[in-house]
Amino acid sequence: MKKKIAILGASGYTGAELIRLLATHPGFEITALTGERKAGQPLASVFPFLRHMALPDLTRIEEVDFGDIDLAFCALPHATSQAVIRDLPRDLRIVDLSADFRLRDPADYQKWYGKPHAAPDIQREAVYGLTEFYRDAIRSARLVAGTGCNAATGQYALRPLVAAGVIDLDDIILDLKCGVSGAGRALKENLLHAELSEGTQPYAVGGTHRHLGEFDQELSLAAGREVRILFTPHLLPMNRGILATAWLKGDAQRIHAVLSDAYCAESFLQVLPFGTVPSTHDVRGSNFVHIGVVGDRVPGRAMVAAVLDNLTKGSSGQALQNANLMMGFDETTGLMAPPVFP
Amino acid sequence: MKKKIAILGASGYTGAELIRLLATHPGFEITALTGERKAGQPLASVFPFLRHMALPDLTRIEEVDFGDIDLAFCALPHATSQAVIRDLPRDLRIVDLSADFRLRDPADYQKWYGKPHAAPDIQREAVYGLTEFYRDAIRSARLVAGTGCNAATGQYALRPLVAAGVIDLDDIILDLKCGVSGAGRALKENLLHAELSEGTQPYAVGGTHRHLGEFDQELSLAAGREVRILFTPHLLPMNRGILATAWLKGDAQRIHAVLSDAYCAESFLQVLPFGTVPSTHDVRGSNFVHIGVVGDRVPGRAMVAAVLDNLTKGSSGQALQNANLMMGFDETTGLMAPPVFP
Amino acid sequence: MKKKIAILGASGYTGAELIRLLATHPGFEITALTGERKAGQPLASVFPFLRHMALPDLTRIEEVDFGDIDLAFCALPHATSQAVIRDLPRDLRIVDLSADFRLRDPADYQKWYGKPHAAPDIQREAVYGLTEFYRDAIRSARLVAGTGCNAATGQYALRPLVAAGVIDLDDIILDLKCGVSGAGRALKENLLHAELSEGTQPYAVGGTHRHLGEFDQELSLAAGREVRILFTPHLLPMNRGILATAWLKGDAQRIHAVLSDAYCAESFLQVLPFGTVPSTHDVRGSNFVHIGVVGDRVPGRAMVAAVLDNLTKGSSGQALQNANLMMGFDETTGLMAPPVFP
Amino acid sequence: MKKKIAILGASGYTGAELIRLLATHPGFEITALTGERKAGQPLASVFPFLRHMALPDLTRIEEVDFGDIDLAFCALPHATSQAVIRDLPRDLRIVDLSADFRLRDPADYQKWYGKPHAAPDIQREAVYGLTEFYRDAIRSARLVAGTGCNAATGQYALRPLVAAGVIDLDDIILDLKCGVSGAGRALKENLLHAELSEGTQPYAVGGTHRHLGEFDQELSLAAGREVRILFTPHLLPMNRGILATAWLKGDAQRIHAVLSDAYCAESFLQVLPFGTVPSTHDVRGSNFVHIGVVGDRVPGRAMVAAVLDNLTKGSSGQALQNANLMMGFDETTGLMAPPVFP
Repeated sequence: MKKKIAILGASGYTGAELIRLLATHPGFEITALTGERKAGQPLASVFPFLRHMALPDLTRIEEVDFGDIDLAFCALPHATSQAVIRDLPRDLRIVDLSADFRLRDPADYQKWYGKPHAAPDIQREAVYGLTEFYRDAIRSARLVAGTGCNAATGQYALRPLVAAGVIDLDDIILDLKCGVSGAGRALKENLLHAELSEGTQPYAVGGTHRHLGEFDQELSLAAGREVRILFTPHLLPMNRGILATAWLKGDAQRIHAVLSDAYCAESFLQVLPFGTVPSTHDVRGSNFVHIGVVGDRVPGRAMVAAVLDNLTKGSSGQALQNANLMMGFDETTGLMAPPVFP
Repeated sequence: MKKKIAILGASGYTGAELIRLLATHPGFEITALTGERKAGQPLASVFPFLRHMALPDLTRIEEVDFGDIDLAFCALPHATSQAVIRDLPRDLRIVDLSADFRLRDPADYQKWYGKPHAAPDIQREAVYGLTEFYRDAIRSARLVAGTGCNAATGQYALRPLVAAGVIDLDDIILDLKCGVSGAGRALKENLLHAELSEGTQPYAVGGTHRHLGEFDQELSLAAGREVRILFTPHLLPMNRGILATAWLKGDAQRIHAVLSDAYCAESFLQVLPFGTVPSTHDVRGSNFVHIGVVGDRVPGRAMVAAVLDNLTKGSSGQALQNANLMMGFDETTGLMAPPVFP
Repeated sequence: MKKKIAILGASGYTGAELIRLLATHPGFEITALTGERKAGQPLASVFPFLRHMALPDLTRIEEVDFGDIDLAFCALPHATSQAVIRDLPRDLRIVDLSADFRLRDPADYQKWYGKPHAAPDIQREAVYGLTEFYRDAIRSARLVAGTGCNAATGQYALRPLVAAGVIDLDDIILDLKCGVSGAGRALKENLLHAELSEGTQPYAVGGTHRHLGEFDQELSLAAGREVRILFTPHLLPMNRGILATAWLKGDAQRIHAVLSDAYCAESFLQVLPFGTVPSTHDVRGSNFVHIGVVGDRVPGRAMVAAVLDNLTKGSSGQALQNANLMMGFDETTGLMAPPVFP
Repeated sequence: MKKKIAILGASGYTGAELIRLLATHPGFEITALTGERKAGQPLASVFPFLRHMALPDLTRIEEVDFGDIDLAFCALPHATSQAVIRDLPRDLRIVDLSADFRLRDPADYQKWYGKPHAAPDIQREAVYGLTEFYRDAIRSARLVAGTGCNAATGQYALRPLVAAGVIDLDDIILDLKCGVSGAGRALKENLLHAELSEGTQPYAVGGTHRHLGEFDQELSLAAGREVRILFTPHLLPMNRGILATAWLKGDAQRIHAVLSDAYCAESFLQVLPFGTVPSTHDVRGSNFVHIGVVGDRVPGRAMVAAVLDNLTKGSSGQALQNANLMMGFDETTGLMAPPVFP
């Protein structure tokens, strides 16, 4: 019998991406979709690209009978999520896609998000959802916190290197290039086609991007000491995709070896041959991550470039991967469709 | 046991799209991939987005053991295809994606393609691959000729209307808007990003586009009389998608009723509620077709707009749909993945 | 001495485009810029691309001393414009870029804009700003109403043909392809990069687009009888540019001759050699219009394709062209810069 | 009397951009345009966007009467340029836009370009065309070598800092984001719209990009010691624009002060307020450079971001700026048109 799924916040991009991925999943069945402002509407009117699917209409969260639900994906806006999840049944298994449960320490949450956490006890219980590094904990978790899409991309490039100590931990620079869908369906001038296409600029500069909270927490954990990277994202005129360029001090060949070893058994993480660099074109719409390592003419320097699709592996695909683990399915179920190219 | 598949011409976009779709097909297994100029290379070096798949290396056609193959997709360039297919084993079942076998009459072929056909007897035997209208013949066909992507889009909008006689057959205007991948991986100045992005223009104007040969053949057949439409495509700054805007004389409500009836049992053809228009965004990367009908303030006039993804439903998805029929699978197998949005 | 210019509504795209064009104009000097919500801000904070210019800060309209102003461009939103202009000094010369004064008949205004006009007497006095057809009236006008960008493009393709009677006036189809900047800086989901890029769809279908009011008024005037065209625009993933494809009944060669004659003395209107079609790429950022005419394999049919940049010739460039006439400058002053390609 | 100009290699993007800029220049007159493969054609057939201009047809170089020419722009491909310039009259003043004369040392040329220079004596004579740093030498130069577009962008960000010694010279990282027009009109798969739009990737990785030759030469000169930066460009889905993100060790406020001082008298170089970052959108189609400086949460670290349009300030605009100096015009003549936004 299929597992029954609710998606809270189905009218945003990550909610829609979840439905897209679940459409071909043999073990999950969508039984509830919520969208506060659009409650009562058929999903096809919000997302016509899903009109061929037989799906429940959007409802309000309080209308959902959670007794019937095996797992809920929570794709609500940041800050909203924590209040909603606090009030959900304590035995409901949840994959949250917001930023609300990524940081374990309430002080860190307050520092990066500017206000106290509304559910600090649940916050402590949440498992960080970077699947390849928290697999066992995720299997038995009640609440899994999906990672930031930038934080995921950077960690795939850096985490094994930080853990192995093969790079200078005090000189890690992460120059990110991001597509726009990571900003969600927000109505902002800089997200308009007229303002965003045909150009690029940095944003959240100077070490202010909130995903730094995740980098600090996770890389320090991996290193066994405090790690503070430099990280600036750039907004690119494309919808999907993140390219993380990491500028590192260390031996490039050794870096390549460490990453290759770390990921050799992973279904979604592909380390390219040494000297080869990845393209976001090659992962679009998929759950795959491509990682390339190159040396430099300057000795002792290396560049690691990692790419993923922010809506899939960076968010909803990762969420489904985690849900597979939590419900006892093979981790890759529903996620092996190739990227869409061109 | 899985059916064994060869793809001839796997280094172009339609070949790659076939592999993408076959990746999640439960009944087909790719056992040969050919690419003349790139023979000997792993496919991952030609299409890195497919690098996670275990696939045979590219070979030359003459290296393929066709005795082992259940069905061959032929994704070769126009004109090349007919010479290759002429020399393939006579009992091999083939889905051809080129233009070579779309026109039944050798004189028509010569008229539109400017030279005599190299295999006129095989030409006569081929079944036109517009699945929804040739289903039975396709099931038992040895050779199915994939339709032109523009011709498919236009026919989905027009064919039931022409057959039912609910529109003026002497005044059909088809204004097409096409993404660039339909032109293939050809190295031409006008296909460069710098020349194509951020603008649009008509091309193949004045009734010269070769897909008119298909429209003439198929719409005349459906009407039982000669039909000659006006058709001009426009090249748009996008990769996938065709929008066919048909300007028609007829009663819009009746047109909507005829299309709704004709397609009500079809898995991939979705007629939108009356007055609603489709977007290519909503079918990208999928095998679905969305069709909308609207009336006009000028009485007796109607507009039908149809959208599909030229690489999927307009080419490789249609090819797989036909192959499913030929091999006894459910027609939708491997093709129900939703579009990718945004 | 330079003429003093005010721009009311300088924080939108047409206001910014005016400033861009005025930057190199030898006879105009910008002395006031207004923007209600952004009053008090330097323009460089609203439009950083203009930061090298010495410009007055944004103010509120009531802070402008109009006694000092020779000519005001009014780039305010539709409906706002009429109330503002009603209260401006009666001797101030004005070029309005909104839709408010395009229709001469108050009943037509009410029909297309859904409410009564707030300044019907001024409405009657306004001159329709399609420069090439209203040159003399514009020279002496107090108030010139800038045309709709779609209406301008269509009229450049059609107006001489309608006047000369060389096409069937009862069967004119105008299939438009538009860039997104024509929609202004509005915060709407369908204008987001994520929703607009990589795809296309029709909008304002069925004869409902407001620019039809202009087509009805102007083409009927040119024809000396009522003319009602069919017109549907399509939104394209590009920022600037309109391509109007007109499907006509008439002799293509004669159509080409009529257009060539009509425009042979025009600086900005370029009729291409017969059989050649234009591209929006070739007019981007400029005040030029390119027009192509082709015949069809179906006798008696023709296609006229016209392109322009909606922000320049379709709006702010046209406004400046009109202001040149009103202030006694050569019509082309400040407007001869070539398009930007690629 | 106007100065007579020849453009050698007028059928590429930089040639076309030169014509665009010269169109509104009061002191220059184009009297010869060459294009070997397209000799005999009117320029309007190669670049329809220039069709309103009265221009000479394309000829072959040997057909040009250089006795009549005051200054030649040489926009030929790399390697071709040196052979052509070697054979031009020795008293002809030349602005070369190729890479051929950027490096002073023949050994450096051979190292980066893989073969000996064909005109080493002329190579030694050429002045490096980064206007703001070589103004006096350019005024009297016979041959000015236009800089690499990436090299220009990086130097605007770095050069005053290197000269002032306010950054760690052994730890300069330059992460570049480039539009595609910098690659010219070359027919390559990765420059096709279908392969380039909607994604990004690094290229010329590991310290192999040829513009490093310029960085090495010029930054070492500025520093008075050898400087070797790390530099990797990334190809972005946009036509025009380069964003150089420099990751530096130094005091951000001091860096901002040095850049502000260095450029305070420059017409085209705009240093933004401290903490503000630039966008390529804000310089597109113009000769302006915007530069921003930000600090980081990690003390002692700074990021400098510089943007320009590779075809204008990065190539043809710079060339015209230099030609202005060489011919005695004000340096900004014909170059003050604002960017095109959106």
